[in-house]
Amino acid sequence: MSGLDSVDLSTANAVAAGTNKSTKRIVAYGIGGKLMGTKSMTDVTAEELSKDSVAEMLAKDKKIKEKYAKQKHISEQPWTLENWHKHINWLNFILVLAVPVGGLVSTRWVPLTWNTFVTAIILYCFGGLSITAGYHRHWAHRAYDCKAPLKIFFALFGASAIEGSIKMWGHQHRVHHRYTDTPRDPYDAKRGFWYSHMGWMLLVPNPRYKARADISDLLDDWVVRAQHRHYLLLMVFMAFFFPAILTHYLFNDFWGGFIYAGLLRAAFIQQATFCVNSLAHWIGEQPFDDRRTPRDHILTALVTFGEGYHNFHHEFPSDYRNALKWYQYDPTKVVIYCMSKVGLAFNLKKFSQNAIDQGILQQQQKKIDRMRAKLNWGPQLSELPVWDKSTFFEKAKEQKGLVIISGIVHDCANFLTEHPGGQALLRTSFGKDATMAFNGGVYAHSNAAHNMLATLRVAVIRDGGANGDTFDAQLRFIKFIYDLS
Amino acid sequence: MSGLDSVDLSTANAVAAGTNKSTKRIVAYGIGGKLMGTKSMTDVTAEELSKDSVAEMLAKDKKIKEKYAKQKHISEQPWTLENWHKHINWLNFILVLAVPVGGLVSTRWVPLTWNTFVTAIILYCFGGLSITAGYHRHWAHRAYDCKAPLKIFFALFGASAIEGSIKMWGHQHRVHHRYTDTPRDPYDAKRGFWYSHMGWMLLVPNPRYKARADISDLLDDWVVRAQHRHYLLLMVFMAFFFPAILTHYLFNDFWGGFIYAGLLRAAFIQQATFCVNSLAHWIGEQPFDDRRTPRDHILTALVTFGEGYHNFHHEFPSDYRNALKWYQYDPTKVVIYCMSKVGLAFNLKKFSQNAIDQGILQQQQKKIDRMRAKLNWGPQLSELPVWDKSTFFEKAKEQKGLVIISGIVHDCANFLTEHPGGQALLRTSFGKDATMAFNGGVYAHSNAAHNMLATLRVAVIRDGGANGDTFDAQLRFIKFIYDLS
Ligand code: HEM
Ligand code: HEM
Ligand SMILES: [Fe+2]
Ligand SMILES: [Fe+2]
Ligand SMILES: [Fe+2]
Ligand SMILES: [Fe+2]
Repeated sequence: MSGLDSVDLSTANAVAAGTNKSTKRIVAYGIGGKLMGTKSMTDVTAEELSKDSVAEMLAKDKKIKEKYAKQKHISEQPWTLENWHKHINWLNFILVLAVPVGGLVSTRWVPLTWNTFVTAIILYCFGGLSITAGYHRHWAHRAYDCKAPLKIFFALFGASAIEGSIKMWGHQHRVHHRYTDTPRDPYDAKRGFWYSHMGWMLLVPNPRYKARADISDLLDDWVVRAQHRHYLLLMVFMAFFFPAILTHYLFNDFWGGFIYAGLLRAAFIQQATFCVNSLAHWIGEQPFDDRRTPRDHILTALVTFGEGYHNFHHEFPSDYRNALKWYQYDPTKVVIYCMSKVGLAFNLKKFSQNAIDQGILQQQQKKIDRMRAKLNWGPQLSELPVWDKSTFFEKAKEQKGLVIISGIVHDCANFLTEHPGGQALLRTSFGKDATMAFNGGVYAHSNAAHNMLATLRVAVIRDGGANGDTFDAQLRFIKFIYDLS
Repeated sequence: MSGLDSVDLSTANAVAAGTNKSTKRIVAYGIGGKLMGTKSMTDVTAEELSKDSVAEMLAKDKKIKEKYAKQKHISEQPWTLENWHKHINWLNFILVLAVPVGGLVSTRWVPLTWNTFVTAIILYCFGGLSITAGYHRHWAHRAYDCKAPLKIFFALFGASAIEGSIKMWGHQHRVHHRYTDTPRDPYDAKRGFWYSHMGWMLLVPNPRYKARADISDLLDDWVVRAQHRHYLLLMVFMAFFFPAILTHYLFNDFWGGFIYAGLLRAAFIQQATFCVNSLAHWIGEQPFDDRRTPRDHILTALVTFGEGYHNFHHEFPSDYRNALKWYQYDPTKVVIYCMSKVGLAFNLKKFSQNAIDQGILQQQQKKIDRMRAKLNWGPQLSELPVWDKSTFFEKAKEQKGLVIISGIVHDCANFLTEHPGGQALLRTSFGKDATMAFNGGVYAHSNAAHNMLATLRVAVIRDGGANGDTFDAQLRFIKFIYDLS
């Protein structure tokens, strides 16, 4: 629309990427910031992202293509015996593999006691809920606000899940929502189940598809900053030593706590929450919109503390709920709700029921439309030949079975033996106008009968007042008679 | 449609009423023909019925009204202490009342034995199924054909149900289908639960609403003729003495059989099958059409050997099935199917799945349409004022929050704090055209976001290329970019 001031895409993308503000960099000690992250994917300026207006994007694409025509990035090269080790993000590889394998192997020497098992389950729930209620719904989506004690709890036990810092996780997750199902989506479900489950973090990503999202609100949160700075320390302590020390003091079982409530518990949380990126984009229903990959499935919900209603979640991301119905499993929602009752959570956000119902309705409409296209509704009136009355007389003489109803000619020859009202009545109508008889003069036919009638259409009578919605015409005719009498 | 030969309604109604043929009258001995019947309701000629063309019907109605203005028929008079006995059809009254009351009272003297109880249950099933599979689906609806042995079984045990002869029952039932929900319907559900359950047979009917249906096919069946002729005898024997003699020979319990397997069993069958006229037009779902009273309900199915899917049945009366799904309860269908496997039944009729699915779909569409009408979809473009670009500039200066997307002006002031993508981005768009930004330039919004957007509409920009289906426009825009690159 020329003449109108359009939103400047460069500026807007800078806002969306958070690069318009000069926030001071928050640096993690050691390798903490890189853990479980794909930092190299998000190292891009807003200016680069905003070159996506149609013309510039094509130019940029061409330039990148040319560049990689000569020398392709490792992620674009096939796997060979020489280069396979370059494909892999070894830091993440070790961390995601060392934890479960280390845990499994160590079970040979240390038996699992009942007490330690219960501790592991409790810490599993603490870690899992800190990811779902904390990392995801509170920080990544701002679905509700939190008091400091709860934030600190989430930050500590979230670290125990070994999925990266809040800052890293929240950023990646916002990028995932902003670019769902595109190559910029860090866990792009279109690249297959394994890629979205773990591949994205085990492989070196393609720098062509860098992306950013604004996380200035996260950086304003001291809990987020502190956790990111000390992430490595916190993670190692909360994931392994805290459980070990706990079981040591309670049940004198240091190594049991380290292995079962530490290593193995963390491995389980990892796999469970990775399912939100894989399973939740792979199996289930799409009650709200089916044009993107997210899906609702009870199985995903069961392994992810209720994050399985993912079709809803992508349509209504800042809703503190994932499941709407009481019979759907969403313990995270329940925890948030309870926290709000004790004053630790507030400003719980909900989308309007109107917007939610609109989505459900539009999906149902699509289903019905698909079914409608599969059924035989008979020809449209516009597809039929137009006959003069004289043509009808002639044809009806040669060919038994032609009946006019509502100005439309029907061929009832094959329906004769099937007519529930008997053959005799249909026969008396052959070659005649049976509008009155069919619509109540003899019998006011059901809606089903009108549907069947439409499949028998062969022609339209010129100036015969043809009306395709014959059942509606009948209803109005009957009402007319009733109103008269 | 002048110039075209219309079906002559007199002739056609004569055919539909079966009065065009001179079938010899089949007279029942004694009062057999009148039992459970409303003979006076069907005593009408086709000529009388065919006077239903609009003009003649009005004239006839007027004449009848004039007649009853002077002296009203008993059924149109209020109940008084003097006339109450005239309202009642005493023959039916005694029969429907004497049987259960007689049975109940007699239980004082005769204990119920386990053997007799089992016999009563078996005879109950024989009687009930003879009504549903025999009287109803075979004779009244011609949903399948029967070999003689099965017909004789149905005729005998059908008589034991004390619901009138096949001829009487079949005729009334056809009239019920032909005139469903009108005053001519013998068990007109619009007159309330009790009228359709038993009232219609206990009260003297109104002669204004006589009706007929063709039963010439029934009269051609020697089993039907024989049963009608000897109905009184057959009924009394099959209902009372056969059970009594049976239990006498088997368990030496004549009176137990007479009371429990006779009187009480018959009363139960009566009540159960009466439910098809009352309950089945009263409780349940209407998956196929909701413009008439018949309904589908598992409860009705349970008490009527599967005749409870009555919404289906009225749309597809000559289908040998009442329930379509394997998990729905329709033992009558199963019996018919098994009889066909042993060669006693054949020509089982089904309506096309196409016609059935059409009905289901149209009903679902109606539900969706009703829901759609309740939701807020924002104003239609045609309901909005048209603004010049200059008007937009001026208004946008005074009033913060106006954003153009797809040529439509939206007021986003109140949405600012609710925007899941943050306030900053929305603020940069105030007073501007954000079409590109909203549709992928910054973020390709979900379908849900487009629904919310529509509710914020305030005006249309003149020559702005307004497109009400903004999400569709976005999808096409994104596809266009993908196709280019
Ligand atoms: C020309 C195409 C026709 C079709 C497709 C058709 C279809 C049907 C169907 C599906 C029924 C079952 C009941 C219902 O669904 O309402 C039925 C019953 C009946 N039809 Fe037709 N019919 C046709 C023509 C006629 C004509 C021309 C007459 C009258 C002259 C007629 C008279 C009746 C009667 C009396 C019944 C029996 C009602 C009952 O016992 O349920 N039909 N017809
Ligand atoms: C004018 C009315 C607007 C409405 C009703 C609206 C609505 C929404 C909604 C419902 C979401 C949640 C995600 C989704 O459903 O797709 C969202 C997210 C977002 N919106 Fe808007 N929006 C509007 C304007 C804008 C504008 C003008 C921009 C950019 C300049 C923008 C950028 C974003 C971004 C970046 C997200 C975050 C994506 C995410 O993390 O899921 N929005 N918006
Ligand atoms: Fe997702
Ligand atoms: Fe999310
Ligand atoms: Fe009925
Ligand atoms: Fe029926």
